[in-house]
Amino acid sequence: MDRTEISALGEFGLIRRLTDKIVLQQPSTRKGVGDDCAVMQYDRDECVLMTSDMLLEGIHFNLEYVPLKHLGYKAAIVNFSDIYAMNGTPTQLTVSLGVSKRFSVEDLEELYSGIRQACERYGVDLVGGDTCSSMTGLTIAITCLGTAKADEIVYRNGAKQNDLICVTGNLGTAYMGLQLLERERLVMQGNDKATPDFEGKEYLLERQLKPEARRDIIQKLREAGIKPTAMMDISDGLSSELLHICKQSGVGCAVYEDKLPIDYQAVVLAEEMNLNIVTCALNGGEDYELLFTCSLSDYEKLVPIDDIYLIGHITKPEAGTVLIGRQGEEIPLKAQGFNAFSEA
Amino acid sequence: MDRTEISALGEFGLIRRLTDKIVLQQPSTRKGVGDDCAVMQYDRDECVLMTSDMLLEGIHFNLEYVPLKHLGYKAAIVNFSDIYAMNGTPTQLTVSLGVSKRFSVEDLEELYSGIRQACERYGVDLVGGDTCSSMTGLTIAITCLGTAKADEIVYRNGAKQNDLICVTGNLGTAYMGLQLLERERLVMQGNDKATPDFEGKEYLLERQLKPEARRDIIQKLREAGIKPTAMMDISDGLSSELLHICKQSGVGCAVYEDKLPIDYQAVVLAEEMNLNIVTCALNGGEDYELLFTCSLSDYEKLVPIDDIYLIGHITKPEAGTVLIGRQGEEIPLKAQGFNAFSEA
Repeated sequence: MDRTEISALGEFGLIRRLTDKIVLQQPSTRKGVGDDCAVMQYDRDECVLMTSDMLLEGIHFNLEYVPLKHLGYKAAIVNFSDIYAMNGTPTQLTVSLGVSKRFSVEDLEELYSGIRQACERYGVDLVGGDTCSSMTGLTIAITCLGTAKADEIVYRNGAKQNDLICVTGNLGTAYMGLQLLERERLVMQGNDKATPDFEGKEYLLERQLKPEARRDIIQKLREAGIKPTAMMDISDGLSSELLHICKQSGVGCAVYEDKLPIDYQAVVLAEEMNLNIVTCALNGGEDYELLFTCSLSDYEKLVPIDDIYLIGHITKPEAGTVLIGRQGEEIPLKAQGFNAFSEA
Repeated sequence: MDRTEISALGEFGLIRRLTDKIVLQQPSTRKGVGDDCAVMQYDRDECVLMTSDMLLEGIHFNLEYVPLKHLGYKAAIVNFSDIYAMNGTPTQLTVSLGVSKRFSVEDLEELYSGIRQACERYGVDLVGGDTCSSMTGLTIAITCLGTAKADEIVYRNGAKQNDLICVTGNLGTAYMGLQLLERERLVMQGNDKATPDFEGKEYLLERQLKPEARRDIIQKLREAGIKPTAMMDISDGLSSELLHICKQSGVGCAVYEDKLPIDYQAVVLAEEMNLNIVTCALNGGEDYELLFTCSLSDYEKLVPIDDIYLIGHITKPEAGTVLIGRQGEEIPLKAQGFNAFSEA
């Protein structure tokens, strides 16, 4: 494959190369890449949502097994997920990159093609950013804007006693995908003839490498006339996110171990690797599913919607934040999720 | 000085510690730090401006001589400057940090105190971000939002033949400040008894370490009823920025060497260091002054405004982009400014 050094293009040449394929889709975008700022104009009744995420090589991703295109896709999705978690619609994105000499122009084109693909699929405009050299490794910082009407926004602090607790999709699957990739990386190390064994486990890889944001759920809830009372996306693990909602809402919760949605492939791999799948489901990060609470009166409207699972209910604060085990035992939830600092 | 390890607080404890002193000032901010997204609501006739910048240790700053508080201040200012360069007003900011174990909680508090000070001075709300560990060094990614009425926004592409070319403040001073810091750093290396000699050169240091954004100029232009035809801030050097404006506007330019505003201390240091001060003024980066063009008919209104300097005029495209030397010779302008990639 060709390798063009970034220095051969220079900063402005590189930016042109990376951004000239961008097609703006959002009516709110008035000016994208190419000036000191991007310019947007929103409808009067729209609030503007803003979220920022940073991904660092060696901490958040390992390029030994993460293709750059998937990394770009995921970096964008992670931000869209935060906007959906407010019940909003993502609209614009800026991408700042720190890039060492190890990376070629073609590498960055791969990364950008993933970002662009995510933007096209979710109808988001890439409107700016910053690209600079780094001493070492790859750093990606993305900020995403979105819109929502003021009375549609769902915060973390609105959960009420007796509300239903729901999650989408399944839990712990992205974490098991990461365990699989790490296992095969270790097998391959120093063994040229080995090939990674992913057979029957493709779904786990997809969940880790190419997650999606749950736009579909947000749309279905809206169609069904359900407005959650509190909502978050699950990036640090269910336990950690539930504790956020309970703390900010001033309530307790009870979730049921046997109600947690867990994927079959994840169960099989957890057995193989001698891991407790419930722990993975509670504390594994990066699922980018939605966790939300809604009024008991929405139950009938909720049931027909695919891929939403009722896992428990909100309690009074004195009841604490607990997991009810299969034998009915109460286990306090702990935020031992993805805490990059305590691991470092 | 106390040193608290970041791991002792964890990610959420750290975020609380860094953000609990934030006071929101902007009427457009509805929700700051603490949910999946920040939430803003702007007036109907306001456009939203958005700019992102990334600063990397070892590339953009050297912590051997840059105090963390100043670094935080500058990281915010750089973004405000981009908003003013569109003739807008900065309103909200998110800060993403990648931090290695070398840094303590107190270090990050220093950095944040600088960011907060810049925000307070310019009336900008810190509304969110992301803080994560890095393998090595410090990475700061800031995104700033601002507002401007649609008909007040100034782009780079509006310069017209015969327009006046103006700059604010002075040029090359921040670059000379950097040269001074680098010189004294080398003197100090391996010499415990040496002290850096900055006497009489404090202004150069200030321009490098603690720049300001030219809000004052934007206000004065507005008061005088002047709307520039094109505008940028000078972050990569005058030559590079002039070429952007001329290219995007489809025009040429003539700027006069003897009209370039140059600070006396910068001249003295350039002599000492055997540097050509005109080259530094044309190509030194990080001045964060404004470069703008305006109609010849605004001349009378422009003259009374302090700290704005007329350096030339816009020509037809065939005339090229030239510097007119002291003997009247024409020298083509080149974008040899701050190109991090060609140096890398």
